[in-house]
Amino acid sequence: VRAGIVVTGTEVLTGRVTDRNGPWLAEELRRRGVDVGQVVVVGDRPDDLAAALRYLAGSCELVITSGGLGPTADDLTAEVVAGVQGRALRRDPDLEKRITAIVDRLMARLSVARDPEATAAGVRKQALVPGAATVLEPTGTAPGLVVTDAAGQNPPVVVLPGPPRELRSMWPAALEAPAVRSVLAAAGEIRQRTLRLWGLPEAELAALLRRVDDELTGLEITTCLRDGELEIVSRYAPAAEPAHERLLAAVRAEYGDQLFSDDGREVDELVAAALADRGWNVAVVESLTGGAMSARLTRALDDGTSVVRGAVVGREARQETSSAAATSMAQAARDELEAEVGIGVTAVDPADAPATTVHVAVVTPGTERRRTLTYDAPPALLRARVPTVAMHLLREALSS
Amino acid sequence: VRAGIVVTGTEVLTGRVTDRNGPWLAEELRRRGVDVGQVVVVGDRPDDLAAALRYLAGSCELVITSGGLGPTADDLTAEVVAGVQGRALRRDPDLEKRITAIVDRLMARLSVARDPEATAAGVRKQALVPGAATVLEPTGTAPGLVVTDAAGQNPPVVVLPGPPRELRSMWPAALEAPAVRSVLAAAGEIRQRTLRLWGLPEAELAALLRRVDDELTGLEITTCLRDGELEIVSRYAPAAEPAHERLLAAVRAEYGDQLFSDDGREVDELVAAALADRGWNVAVVESLTGGAMSARLTRALDDGTSVVRGAVVGREARQETSSAAATSMAQAARDELEAEVGIGVTAVDPADAPATTVHVAVVTPGTERRRTLTYDAPPALLRARVPTVAMHLLREALSS
Repeated sequence: VRAGIVVTGTEVLTGRVTDRNGPWLAEELRRRGVDVGQVVVVGDRPDDLAAALRYLAGSCELVITSGGLGPTADDLTAEVVAGVQGRALRRDPDLEKRITAIVDRLMARLSVARDPEATAAGVRKQALVPGAATVLEPTGTAPGLVVTDAAGQNPPVVVLPGPPRELRSMWPAALEAPAVRSVLAAAGEIRQRTLRLWGLPEAELAALLRRVDDELTGLEITTCLRDGELEIVSRYAPAAEPAHERLLAAVRAEYGDQLFSDDGREVDELVAAALADRGWNVAVVESLTGGAMSARLTRALDDGTSVVRGAVVGREARQETSSAAATSMAQAARDELEAEVGIGVTAVDPADAPATTVHVAVVTPGTERRRTLTYDAPPALLRARVPTVAMHLLREALSS
Repeated sequence: VRAGIVVTGTEVLTGRVTDRNGPWLAEELRRRGVDVGQVVVVGDRPDDLAAALRYLAGSCELVITSGGLGPTADDLTAEVVAGVQGRALRRDPDLEKRITAIVDRLMARLSVARDPEATAAGVRKQALVPGAATVLEPTGTAPGLVVTDAAGQNPPVVVLPGPPRELRSMWPAALEAPAVRSVLAAAGEIRQRTLRLWGLPEAELAALLRRVDDELTGLEITTCLRDGELEIVSRYAPAAEPAHERLLAAVRAEYGDQLFSDDGREVDELVAAALADRGWNVAVVESLTGGAMSARLTRALDDGTSVVRGAVVGREARQETSSAAATSMAQAARDELEAEVGIGVTAVDPADAPATTVHVAVVTPGTERRRTLTYDAPPALLRARVPTVAMHLLREALSS
């Protein structure tokens, strides 16, 4: 069973907003045995949206749209979907009342001036529903829709709002709509496993995969190199489970030292779990990364079992730039902030050197690890990459 | 003149990597008068890629792909494009030598073990070129291609590598390829202007746009609400410049206080420019945001004229949570780190309260601004939103 996704919004098309709905929906569908092969991003133009819907209808049993359900004139998804599915739009007075109640509550909480006519016009627009559609109750202000084709040719279209929180809370209701249930009933199982390696070139992995290719029949394997991490994702039907086991065994035999995750967990999750296990907290001193190291650790430790006790971010740290200095900084932060783990990141200011030399140090009770790296890349890129290096140093320290 | 973009890679389709090429290419093309209405994201499957190329060929004069040029088996863009354009792949021995030289240099710089056969196989693959294609010299290891249709039916396809840095450095060469030049020669001018407002509900703006709709003929307007900022983008042919002037005048008359940018510049750029003008530096104390405030300012001040002199990130800051405490923290950071501007962000730990109350303070020589906000949202979301509030407080302080 295949599904296609249409993400709407000129702000997504032009990159002002990063789409998070397409991938989220693709994974939700995969878990239910539905394969998503394509995501089409279109701007707020009715013709492009209609063309995308017709294109995906040709190869899919289900189409999902996100966005274009707001109160403004450029929000036109409901109207275009109705057109493609051969359904007329009609006012739903009860729905209009429910949306009005939601908007009233929302406005009461905001301290801004409000134009009642503008609000009412927006609500009227949001309460227009294609004939025979299943209405999905608003989780923000916009209702979602499941719209079947009047001619019975096109697959059903699930129309969801753009804001990720709204879309995600509405999703369970979409799955319960009769038209969606009947598509899902035909779906089999698609397994997906992710292996993660650290410190291995992509070409080496490619060579291994070529060597064992005969044993991997039934696996759809993709590899991806990102900030020094190599990711192997394999998708397969349950019958190919033995082939996946052979892949895992081959990777482990050849690159066991580089394989840091065989269950999809990312380095941030592994670090968070290992810190929580020991009840350890972290202190950070960083220069080049300007808060990015601390922000990333804070995100990783979001459940609050272990915490970033504190961080000092400063250009001063750049004055002393050696791996010994990074270690002293990590040590000092740890002592000062009464944390078990200290992380230090220093760098030679790129203005003073052709390439940037970065020193990373991780100190835990009983261990000290440091690494020096030289990058020929702009600071903006390093601020993403260097925290990944530090995360792996920390992971290694915690697993030793 | 219309162009379509195909972004390839299962890692993009599944959200493990965020595409930055589609929007970048769309804007580059817009600046040359070429309109991009759709971006199709496909996984590493030849059939989906071929279908996407054929779909876009139906409505575009130019198609651009990104990704799928690496050394591994799932990198299949060159082969699929050759098939769709009716061209046979052939080895280009000179290109193979040039790629080998690049890979040799790259490997010499890395300290990892290397399998010469694996490397050679990868290079051989990357040096396969469709007949009659223009080769774009590698800026990483992969060459790009401009492939015309043997039958003269499909538009030319520009094949670019996936890594954004490689794609961007290759782009000027792509623009010089004869097939691309002749498409661009037919393009007119597409203007685009962006207005940004702070603190205005989207429905209010929608009402204004409806009221002046008659005066805006020729403008394609999209609005987008993001972290409390409202963005109005209008696209138009040069003949509609007066209509854009009317839009700007209407927004300024009605919402002059909320309009903070009429030339597309973002709040981060405005703050960076205002700080650089005065030669002021910044110090930060933050709790809830865990380094995100400091990281964002560091990014914004990337040119180094003004700097984040330092930041203190700590959970301790959460103990004292009032807007007066945020102001004292900002003041103390400023004094301690010898900066002109101090920023303080404190919050009541969401574990202790139903909603999160956040206090933001900005202190500059002679001014003090503070704001208290209550959010019913998870900490992960606040870490993105709160720095935007602080940036606007800082912008207001700097423009007063």
